[in-house]
Amino acid sequence: MAGSTWGTLLTMTTWGESHGKGLGVVVDGCPAGLALSEEEIQKYLDRRKPGGSRFATKRQEGDKVEILSGVFKGMTTGTPVSMLILNTDHRSHDYDEIKNLYRPGHADYTFDAKYGFRDYRGGGRSSGRETIGRVAAGAVAAKLLESLGIRVAAYTKSIGYIEIDAERFNLEERFRNRLCMPDAEAAAQAEKYLDQLMACQDSAGGVAECIIDGLPAGIGEPVFEKLDARLAHAMMSVGAVKGVEIGDGFQAAAATGSANNDSFAKASDGTIIKESNHAGGILGGISDGSRVVVRVAFKPTPSISAVQKTVNCQGEQVEAVIKGRHDPIIVPRAVVVVEAMAAFTAADILLQSMSSRLDRIQSFFGVRSQ
Amino acid sequence: MAGSTWGTLLTMTTWGESHGKGLGVVVDGCPAGLALSEEEIQKYLDRRKPGGSRFATKRQEGDKVEILSGVFKGMTTGTPVSMLILNTDHRSHDYDEIKNLYRPGHADYTFDAKYGFRDYRGGGRSSGRETIGRVAAGAVAAKLLESLGIRVAAYTKSIGYIEIDAERFNLEERFRNRLCMPDAEAAAQAEKYLDQLMACQDSAGGVAECIIDGLPAGIGEPVFEKLDARLAHAMMSVGAVKGVEIGDGFQAAAATGSANNDSFAKASDGTIIKESNHAGGILGGISDGSRVVVRVAFKPTPSISAVQKTVNCQGEQVEAVIKGRHDPIIVPRAVVVVEAMAAFTAADILLQSMSSRLDRIQSFFGVRSQ
Amino acid sequence: MAGSTWGTLLTMTTWGESHGKGLGVVVDGCPAGLALSEEEIQKYLDRRKPGGSRFATKRQEGDKVEILSGVFKGMTTGTPVSMLILNTDHRSHDYDEIKNLYRPGHADYTFDAKYGFRDYRGGGRSSGRETIGRVAAGAVAAKLLESLGIRVAAYTKSIGYIEIDAERFNLEERFRNRLCMPDAEAAAQAEKYLDQLMACQDSAGGVAECIIDGLPAGIGEPVFEKLDARLAHAMMSVGAVKGVEIGDGFQAAAATGSANNDSFAKASDGTIIKESNHAGGILGGISDGSRVVVRVAFKPTPSISAVQKTVNCQGEQVEAVIKGRHDPIIVPRAVVVVEAMAAFTAADILLQSMSSRLDRIQSFFGVRSQ
Amino acid sequence: MAGSTWGTLLTMTTWGESHGKGLGVVVDGCPAGLALSEEEIQKYLDRRKPGGSRFATKRQEGDKVEILSGVFKGMTTGTPVSMLILNTDHRSHDYDEIKNLYRPGHADYTFDAKYGFRDYRGGGRSSGRETIGRVAAGAVAAKLLESLGIRVAAYTKSIGYIEIDAERFNLEERFRNRLCMPDAEAAAQAEKYLDQLMACQDSAGGVAECIIDGLPAGIGEPVFEKLDARLAHAMMSVGAVKGVEIGDGFQAAAATGSANNDSFAKASDGTIIKESNHAGGILGGISDGSRVVVRVAFKPTPSISAVQKTVNCQGEQVEAVIKGRHDPIIVPRAVVVVEAMAAFTAADILLQSMSSRLDRIQSFFGVRSQ
Repeated sequence: MAGSTWGTLLTMTTWGESHGKGLGVVVDGCPAGLALSEEEIQKYLDRRKPGGSRFATKRQEGDKVEILSGVFKGMTTGTPVSMLILNTDHRSHDYDEIKNLYRPGHADYTFDAKYGFRDYRGGGRSSGRETIGRVAAGAVAAKLLESLGIRVAAYTKSIGYIEIDAERFNLEERFRNRLCMPDAEAAAQAEKYLDQLMACQDSAGGVAECIIDGLPAGIGEPVFEKLDARLAHAMMSVGAVKGVEIGDGFQAAAATGSANNDSFAKASDGTIIKESNHAGGILGGISDGSRVVVRVAFKPTPSISAVQKTVNCQGEQVEAVIKGRHDPIIVPRAVVVVEAMAAFTAADILLQSMSSRLDRIQSFFGVRSQ
Repeated sequence: MAGSTWGTLLTMTTWGESHGKGLGVVVDGCPAGLALSEEEIQKYLDRRKPGGSRFATKRQEGDKVEILSGVFKGMTTGTPVSMLILNTDHRSHDYDEIKNLYRPGHADYTFDAKYGFRDYRGGGRSSGRETIGRVAAGAVAAKLLESLGIRVAAYTKSIGYIEIDAERFNLEERFRNRLCMPDAEAAAQAEKYLDQLMACQDSAGGVAECIIDGLPAGIGEPVFEKLDARLAHAMMSVGAVKGVEIGDGFQAAAATGSANNDSFAKASDGTIIKESNHAGGILGGISDGSRVVVRVAFKPTPSISAVQKTVNCQGEQVEAVIKGRHDPIIVPRAVVVVEAMAAFTAADILLQSMSSRLDRIQSFFGVRSQ
Repeated sequence: MAGSTWGTLLTMTTWGESHGKGLGVVVDGCPAGLALSEEEIQKYLDRRKPGGSRFATKRQEGDKVEILSGVFKGMTTGTPVSMLILNTDHRSHDYDEIKNLYRPGHADYTFDAKYGFRDYRGGGRSSGRETIGRVAAGAVAAKLLESLGIRVAAYTKSIGYIEIDAERFNLEERFRNRLCMPDAEAAAQAEKYLDQLMACQDSAGGVAECIIDGLPAGIGEPVFEKLDARLAHAMMSVGAVKGVEIGDGFQAAAATGSANNDSFAKASDGTIIKESNHAGGILGGISDGSRVVVRVAFKPTPSISAVQKTVNCQGEQVEAVIKGRHDPIIVPRAVVVVEAMAAFTAADILLQSMSSRLDRIQSFFGVRSQ
Repeated sequence: MAGSTWGTLLTMTTWGESHGKGLGVVVDGCPAGLALSEEEIQKYLDRRKPGGSRFATKRQEGDKVEILSGVFKGMTTGTPVSMLILNTDHRSHDYDEIKNLYRPGHADYTFDAKYGFRDYRGGGRSSGRETIGRVAAGAVAAKLLESLGIRVAAYTKSIGYIEIDAERFNLEERFRNRLCMPDAEAAAQAEKYLDQLMACQDSAGGVAECIIDGLPAGIGEPVFEKLDARLAHAMMSVGAVKGVEIGDGFQAAAATGSANNDSFAKASDGTIIKESNHAGGILGGISDGSRVVVRVAFKPTPSISAVQKTVNCQGEQVEAVIKGRHDPIIVPRAVVVVEAMAAFTAADILLQSMSSRLDRIQSFFGVRSQ
């Protein structure tokens, strides 16, 4: 595929640049009969918006979504759901000074190397604004999953060296602080840390974590379309992501088999469960019925106000001073992007999994088994 | 796709189970005119073979590859290259005792949940033997990359808590010790560690690292088909992998922007280079001309001889004692799998990148530019 | 894929319904550096518009295209080109009477069978308006092909039993008459025939033909991605199409090998040519350098004013009287759709063909051959 | 995709050349739990074999299929079914004389144009033997469809100008005569016609027809993945095919709307049916519950013994005399290929259709609807 489409049965095709007319997404393959409104999509987009936080860009964007197709009388029709978000506050002149520079940590140089020239206004297609379409599409997928009893939630796990404490974990807290951390104390510490960095014209990285509850066992295709492989692809496709882990992740690499294996047991209701979840809910690339756990490492915001060494398009050594309006930390606003990508990917692979067993297909089509 | 095919223009479709008649792969989309022989493929397969190491299963497999199609007079014809490796030493009776058990850390339970029943002999399709087809396909891709001046190399970076030392790094050393470590001293320590674990009927995890040199800048498609996203997908699709990092990976999440950004500079030959490589050779999902660096976390071998708690297919609590023949560590034999997946993925996306610029397409087809 | 995306390297994703807010398309994978304007796209859309012909629906739509992304300073950037066409004249109340009917020859029943309910306004997604996105995308592809010296042209070959005469063939004439026929005399006869049918509240079918000139030999992938297979898929995906032929098509089935084989010969400039073109420019699924010829059969417009027998959504026998505004013949307006699909499909497969030979890949990447 | 893979959820990847070591196919995505044996596959392959007919090549091939994976204890496991057919009677020296010639009507020239060189033995990958993998895969799909009450049957509709008579139509008769015609009298006439052509060193074309019974209404994805579009792609991808029709096909183009529209009616069992089937069972790209009817035009066998004009690889004018062993008519042996492609394509799109409605998905996963 050409790069802007994600998914097999449920697909999203995103488009748009930071400072163009707008951004959007076409969601195709959404089953018919799902109640869907612009308000529901908007809630997700609002979580991504800069808002009033001092830890986010000062750019003011309404980011109002409009559903252009695929919904009739409040229900999805099964045909493509096209969603449009117009850009309003695009101050392109901010970028005139840097249009000939290759900003360190940005995709300016690689876009030029690939395409010969680029839309230099605000990163163009490589801007964080590209994720708007993902979030709108993820909102649709999350609604679909909810209707099947599956819940996806992402939050900030760490900022710089400050990590949430498992003892203080409270999922609802993530909506109460500006940093999306489900631990108020860690959030307070992280705010201080960010203030320090901003004072030094610097930025921080961090880790987002996403959990999926209620996913039945048996989802994921062996070999190349494993659930974890698809999730890794989805997460690493988000800008600024440099690492992805499932369950214990890199910790598992330092563990022993006896410590890392999760024992199976019988639950009181007769179902098969695991007594621990080092695997993060996935065995052999297929969901095992436990909570799916994914962690995503984001690098620090590359746009910093400090003077940096770089070259210009002519290859001459220059100094870069990045003005614009930038977040000192990407993670809090990226949390909903991570949630969106997880929801979309899980929903897609869930639909795919319906054709794995002949007996269930026969029953679906009302045929008596052989 | 149904799950056993990987790639867009260059594809591999693998098949086969641990204890079936054989395993194989169909490589489609390989350009015509590449000199290719069974000997070249065999070298890669031999690196995957148990060999005589005491750290590898005692299973004896020749793993001899046969090219069945797509090569004529020693050259690829552009049509599918089908490769077959017959199973010879499949002692299925080893598995009779565990056919009704769900082994901890294995895909037995998830395969049953997905398919209703499974080929229980040696893990069937979820066995490590599934990677044979990947390695054969990767060998073709590596040859293709070599003919374009691109070299891919993977090695063991750590086993348990023992990591290679950057000072002692010697790529050729990886072929000299049994653990594929490019650091003889670390390898010696790791051997001791593994001996201890084996004495306790336990196993270890570890990390493989892969580098790609010579990849031109500009490779990778923005948004969903980013080079790093594709690599993450490829790596996470390998059995037992729980984490993937690019460049500084999770370390970057703890760094600051000023420390993590790589400055651009002008090399003595006039080309644009980076003064450091925290990014691991990829910016905005597109190669930047620096070395690409990928790290892959493998969990400990789940098959351990120690008694483990689990349930059987009827959901009854039982004890599992896994006999069979198993490696106490997966990484050394998986290194060539990582290398194969990196080579294949890079080659595929390289071919895709040929259509990014109109001027180059015009020149390719001998048309004068507008 | 979910059904609204077409292509491999160059893709279009269309969306929109007849009476929704609008329709559009996202073109992804278009090479960077192609000069592109809304005016150029509009020309194609105008050819599809009802215009003032008495042989076309009275619906008045401006069908003005807006490019929302992917073009910067008049040039494609290599990122998705999103195009939007708003609906203006959607008189949904025309459809109130038939919302519970299954119109003969329409997709009302099959959409209900598939999705459980449908957007009944004007056919919704199954309306002929769905082709707007295809035409806009095809205009981009046609521009791309032109820049490589390749020209695509479609026209009406026959309406009912009236066929153009090869002797009178004049490609430019197709822009002069209302029926897009490259033969003024045939067009005049066909107009009379249509007038008769309209008087009887009936409609006609017809055949469109499309030619591609300048396509180099060697385009198309063997086996499942043959040039002709892809063209057949593309054409049959257009609403109301019931047949597709390449070259002599069904005539070839009645011919003998000696009559149907095209002899190869040497042209005066030394190139290899064919002395005839029964094959329609494609041998073994790969272009042979001759003109590519595709023919497409359209059924008669199913919307006729005459009373028809049918059933309603409750399965009760009823009479259908279709008011609305409908064309008595689909072909003249579909000609540009056929041209668009041919251009898009050829452009996509042309880009794919760049990776067929190692020597050319080496030369592309500036590597000396082995 | 690279060209040798077909399908979305159910895929086949074929490989192999006419005179290589063998041919085969990997079927991926076949649901678990389907009883499958080599004998069942063999029956389909035997219908494709030259057999003893004087209207087929004298080449003697056992074409014995071996299932290498994906079947355990007589049941599919859900993992790839790899099937292998070894070549035994490959008399490559027959082709020495023509290796430098471009045979008229063959893909010799286009393969050279594409790949720079080719496996000239018997057409290599462009040989009719390439269809072996399709037939083996189609046999699996046909078994899957049967288990859902869906039956696919193809037969010869015409040879040259001799067509079967609807009055004498008898489906079982196709297995009794050498030409696969479901009309003994037409078959006898066609035999005479072929004898005449063989006496003149010439060959004939013909038409195959395929019917699918029992396909439920609602199968097919709107816009680009319509059932008819996918069938057209599948059929046109078969060698020597030059045209595809659905239902009345090109006849519909000459008809009027009132004659071509099929009225809906209520059957005695309360289901909705059509009173005629001009549409060939497909409306708006989606099955309507009636019999699906596809017709496929095959050109005459291009290999004829008569002397033909052509050029050689150096572009010099030469005379071609094709020895080898060739069928004077392709259709009778291609009938099972058409049946295989129809079965595979229908099965794939049937599986895809399971995710079109939320209520059915909820019921599949045992969730109470909203």
